[in-house]
Amino acid sequence: MSTDHHAGLEDIEVLKSGICEIRQDKLSFRGYNITDLAENACFEETAFLLWNDSLPSEQELRDFKTALRAEYHLPREITEHINHVPREAHPMAVLRTLISSLGLYDPESADNSAPALRRRSIRLLAKIPLLVAAIARHRNARSHVEANPELDIAANFLQCLYGEDPDTETARLLDTALVLYAEHELNASTFTARVTAATRADTYSCIVAAVSALQGSLHGGANQKALEMLLTIGSPENAEAYLLPRLKKKEIIMGFGHRVYKKGDPRVPVLKRMCAQLADKTGQKQIVETAARAEEIMLREKKLYPNVDFYAGLAFYLLGLGADLFTCVFALSRTAGYLAHIAEQYEENKLIRPRAVYTGKKDLPFVPLAAR
Amino acid sequence: MSTDHHAGLEDIEVLKSGICEIRQDKLSFRGYNITDLAENACFEETAFLLWNDSLPSEQELRDFKTALRAEYHLPREITEHINHVPREAHPMAVLRTLISSLGLYDPESADNSAPALRRRSIRLLAKIPLLVAAIARHRNARSHVEANPELDIAANFLQCLYGEDPDTETARLLDTALVLYAEHELNASTFTARVTAATRADTYSCIVAAVSALQGSLHGGANQKALEMLLTIGSPENAEAYLLPRLKKKEIIMGFGHRVYKKGDPRVPVLKRMCAQLADKTGQKQIVETAARAEEIMLREKKLYPNVDFYAGLAFYLLGLGADLFTCVFALSRTAGYLAHIAEQYEENKLIRPRAVYTGKKDLPFVPLAAR
Repeated sequence: MSTDHHAGLEDIEVLKSGICEIRQDKLSFRGYNITDLAENACFEETAFLLWNDSLPSEQELRDFKTALRAEYHLPREITEHINHVPREAHPMAVLRTLISSLGLYDPESADNSAPALRRRSIRLLAKIPLLVAAIARHRNARSHVEANPELDIAANFLQCLYGEDPDTETARLLDTALVLYAEHELNASTFTARVTAATRADTYSCIVAAVSALQGSLHGGANQKALEMLLTIGSPENAEAYLLPRLKKKEIIMGFGHRVYKKGDPRVPVLKRMCAQLADKTGQKQIVETAARAEEIMLREKKLYPNVDFYAGLAFYLLGLGADLFTCVFALSRTAGYLAHIAEQYEENKLIRPRAVYTGKKDLPFVPLAAR
Repeated sequence: MSTDHHAGLEDIEVLKSGICEIRQDKLSFRGYNITDLAENACFEETAFLLWNDSLPSEQELRDFKTALRAEYHLPREITEHINHVPREAHPMAVLRTLISSLGLYDPESADNSAPALRRRSIRLLAKIPLLVAAIARHRNARSHVEANPELDIAANFLQCLYGEDPDTETARLLDTALVLYAEHELNASTFTARVTAATRADTYSCIVAAVSALQGSLHGGANQKALEMLLTIGSPENAEAYLLPRLKKKEIIMGFGHRVYKKGDPRVPVLKRMCAQLADKTGQKQIVETAARAEEIMLREKKLYPNVDFYAGLAFYLLGLGADLFTCVFALSRTAGYLAHIAEQYEENKLIRPRAVYTGKKDLPFVPLAAR
């Protein structure tokens, strides 16, 4: 073996997949362009597409929504457990714990067959948004709100979060954000889900592992960090004074650049339009202008484009979500993609086990404790 | 990109590491041969070596043990939570949940700096065995046993599990098994820990992700499956009748073969001696003879050697542990290795994000719901 290793597995193809195509800075799910999906399909439709390799008919979508809504409830033990969680714990750490806990109440959790996986997928896609809303309410010392089985996932999430029915436009914008975040090939957390599935671990283990990896600031945690940066900058005039010294010190600026997209993230244009719309609606124009100024400076100085996390963070903020909740919203959406990848991995499996280049000491004689 | 992908990342070197060397079917930790360590070093010494790149002096080992023993207690919320866990849930799923929960009670969980990571590593290495023992006792409807800070990790684990001080020989044999299981380069769960650490996720997330991946029957779950198979076979005379038809049907026989070792697992000889010793002590010779016969048949029929899980499962059984607990014992040992790899990953980090070969449909025109 050489010392010429594949750092970060950059551009290394590890498996075949029919779920998500990234080609010349274009993104599609099962052959459908992301912009078409964001503009025309709801989150449930997108999840159905990811799991079935075709868009649902009207009847199929109705049945799918009915199955999801039938899972709009949490085990009593979990809602009670949430009340005992320390309020200061990060919502992603709590979500990781509660998804894991959810697995303890699923009697068929060890069954990885396709029909059991399908039931479990519906359960997880329906229940994770309820967990996120319940975590957020507990964190703010508010009482638990029951789900409304008349509502779609995005609208119901807002209802569980705020305790009142959301307006149609807000729900639709969140729904669009969920479509954009639903899937993205072998990003670090989806890859984690597949490495876990490849050991034949149960599905809860796979989702827990994925959500664990999503938490990091170089991955899902980036949307929170990017928004916090925008709030710190505060106004367009401050953007240069904030960014230039940091760029000089080679600090990473959250929300810019992407391992895969070199000429801009195809999810950004839809999100930018959404942010402009929300700024009009809420009157919060200054932060949107600050984002635009930061974008200009980063392109001029570093030829780096904003990524999905930069404008998704801003969109979530304008939708009224707390910054500490952003990554959880990313998680509830990406669960759709994780589950498509887990199904694919279970179906045609090979253990994922790379090697390391050994750079340490060699062939040392053992010295007994007393002689050290 | 080609369709010639690196399936399972077999032989693909993804990073540099100074922790574990596997060379020509030899295994060493930080330069020290595994057989030397298993025969001469205790588990605490091995963990110190993995984390510090040198064996401890007598004083260093004393200080290290003192620091570990100071962490021999669980948050009250966790011991209370265990009492509410469904008894039928798999111990690995419960362990995954409780390690995640442990992170909620660590006020410095978000601090990935080296000194904070060191404190957290000691905490996790000390507390995970307590969790495993508590889970096992709850599963068997027995009350919680407090740790004994006079004992080393292996002996204290047995004390917490059975509620009485173990005999010296049993504790020493378990300790040896923990040394053998402590580390093994980029196996699937350690790789999962590093993919997670590479997003800059917190340490609890990394360990939770690793333990999630360890659960699978192609990885840590194999020791339980292998022992269950030996119990099913029952006696040496039945081994052919059990194995041959299954080999003909190309079923995977748990506990044989290894992605990395093609000519035998270097951890097996020590474990085999341990099993012989335990069989002498306990009088359970039949299962050891059954294992030897299965080994002969697998070598003759498939040229496959037994791996660590085959004889570790048998050793754990002879030590009196329940089969459903084996993977948890693997986890409490491998935590030493995970934490060494997490430290290395935080220190010199690059996001681990491979690609997939896209094999699905392309460029489909979007069809509105009403027209499908």
